[in-house]
Amino acid sequence: MASDGEVMNNKQVILKHFVDGAPKESDMLVKTSSISLKVESGSKAIVVKNLYLSCDSYVGIRLKNFVPHECSSFTPGSPLEGFGVAKVVDSGYPKFKEGDLVWGTVGWEEYSVIKNPESLFKIHHTDVPLSYYTGILGMQGITAWAGFYKVAAPKKGENVYISAAAGAVGQLVGQFAKLMGCYVVGSAGSKEKVEILKKKLGFDDAFNYKEEHDLNATLKRYFPEGIDLYFETVGGKMLDAVLLNMRLHGRIVVCGMISQYYLSEPEGIHNLMNLPYKRIRMEGLAVIDYFPQYSEFLDVVLALIREEKLVYLEDIAEAIESAPAALVSLFNGRSVGKQVVVVARK
Amino acid sequence: MASDGEVMNNKQVILKHFVDGAPKESDMLVKTSSISLKVESGSKAIVVKNLYLSCDSYVGIRLKNFVPHECSSFTPGSPLEGFGVAKVVDSGYPKFKEGDLVWGTVGWEEYSVIKNPESLFKIHHTDVPLSYYTGILGMQGITAWAGFYKVAAPKKGENVYISAAAGAVGQLVGQFAKLMGCYVVGSAGSKEKVEILKKKLGFDDAFNYKEEHDLNATLKRYFPEGIDLYFETVGGKMLDAVLLNMRLHGRIVVCGMISQYYLSEPEGIHNLMNLPYKRIRMEGLAVIDYFPQYSEFLDVVLALIREEKLVYLEDIAEAIESAPAALVSLFNGRSVGKQVVVVARK
Repeated sequence: MASDGEVMNNKQVILKHFVDGAPKESDMLVKTSSISLKVESGSKAIVVKNLYLSCDSYVGIRLKNFVPHECSSFTPGSPLEGFGVAKVVDSGYPKFKEGDLVWGTVGWEEYSVIKNPESLFKIHHTDVPLSYYTGILGMQGITAWAGFYKVAAPKKGENVYISAAAGAVGQLVGQFAKLMGCYVVGSAGSKEKVEILKKKLGFDDAFNYKEEHDLNATLKRYFPEGIDLYFETVGGKMLDAVLLNMRLHGRIVVCGMISQYYLSEPEGIHNLMNLPYKRIRMEGLAVIDYFPQYSEFLDVVLALIREEKLVYLEDIAEAIESAPAALVSLFNGRSVGKQVVVVARK
Repeated sequence: MASDGEVMNNKQVILKHFVDGAPKESDMLVKTSSISLKVESGSKAIVVKNLYLSCDSYVGIRLKNFVPHECSSFTPGSPLEGFGVAKVVDSGYPKFKEGDLVWGTVGWEEYSVIKNPESLFKIHHTDVPLSYYTGILGMQGITAWAGFYKVAAPKKGENVYISAAAGAVGQLVGQFAKLMGCYVVGSAGSKEKVEILKKKLGFDDAFNYKEEHDLNATLKRYFPEGIDLYFETVGGKMLDAVLLNMRLHGRIVVCGMISQYYLSEPEGIHNLMNLPYKRIRMEGLAVIDYFPQYSEFLDVVLALIREEKLVYLEDIAEAIESAPAALVSLFNGRSVGKQVVVVARK
């Protein structure tokens, strides 16, 4: 337990300056400040020790000076923030007590003061790796689950295409689709990832988009009858090629468009006339809308993990000093599976 | 009744050659051929006398050599086709008898032989103008009704924006939205149309998009709180500006993109990242999917017409010789309201 006024060193990942293009390691620095581990008297805040930090593209976006809609830029000189798993050190909030494990938004630092602890989820199930709450049991898990089961209206036997399929969301959606009896093809940006999709994750097929020069022809090859369901995390030319290859009454679930975040102007999409031609539904999804359904999600996905019906790939970087490189790896395609940083294991 | 072998002169609107850009009158010609008004023995075809022809943008599209998806080009040297109202002259099909009024796809000519009469709807209600079955009680009526009530999920008090609002679909959607208690703004391409929207059709406000240089700013002015529901018939820059001004959980019903049909390549749409940011649903609609619900639609809209709760504007061109000019007027913005050609009044 933290004694009154105990002050600890606190390593933090700081934004040095706003970024122009994709983030580079040199845009961040790790520096040591200090923190009191005791909640101020009368405050409803909690103090947590951070265990695992989640590297997500939306963290990278917030390194830019302009961040669109509902998501603010980080402040140069201050630490980054993102989803993480943490242990409560001291609490002014009745729902949490010292020693509780939680997941939610924390600072990219060893210890954080959380002023709005009501936004955190308490972790009750620890028979699975704690890091899972940064991904498969956290934000990306809910995204994949809500996108597939709540938005996409999938049916057995449908043709499902997933871009960025080796990523945190894509690998889960692909496995949900296989469990439902769909035909599932994924794309990724390296031979290694393509092998993983086919051999470890059970996709019916997969391809390296970097080796394809005509994405329209590629998709026609993998989906001669067309695509019923596309999980969009990429945007740009991939989306335009997908629109040409959608089937009647197809659905496109839009979680993100990682290829577009660091362009000065997003690429134009030219094939939207396929929406009325093929009665396509294209729908954006933001995970926070599904947070109220977290326990329904957890019942489904925990059971699948325990029954070993889901494979989950993590790419775990050791120590907070590795966090800038881990974040950057999301944008240069180097990370395979969910990118996590371990700050401490307990 | 047509006596055996009666042969009549039959004026037809013929496609002279495929068009490159928007259709011109000189791409069509009206010529007289001959037709037997008697169905061949053993055929299930019917022969009809065409009364009203519907000028629709999809008719214009079919003058191009390349027509995307589920909709074929016309054949040079042959008559155009489109929706129309007709009277049965002779019938080999048990459901229809001589003298019945029908609507559905007919040739652009005085008389047509219809080989698939099962696709036609019988007209039972003649207390409204027969020409209404080319629009408000036909294809555009179902499009507006299905788009608004079945796809858009509208709610009282929502902010609705309609482009091409003085057109056949737009004027109806706007009135449906007003009947539901929405705030409705429309845009059109002339001062005259804007006045009609505000003074005759009961829109809350309207503007001439040709006088606006920054559509994003324009939409912010008319919708300071954003747009909940957009009815898309235009595409291009208008859609990009709308995406910037959509509200959380907004819906975009895509019926068509008339600004794009005659471009060699459709314009790029750059602002689709707003789909996930704002959880927008964008859904394409094709009217034929709702033909099985025609009687449900008819109950609703006939009642509204009889109670004088709907205003319906038609632009009626006299005689089949005026059909090429009437079709062209859709694409140069000259037609106000539903463009119809009267071939014969009975």
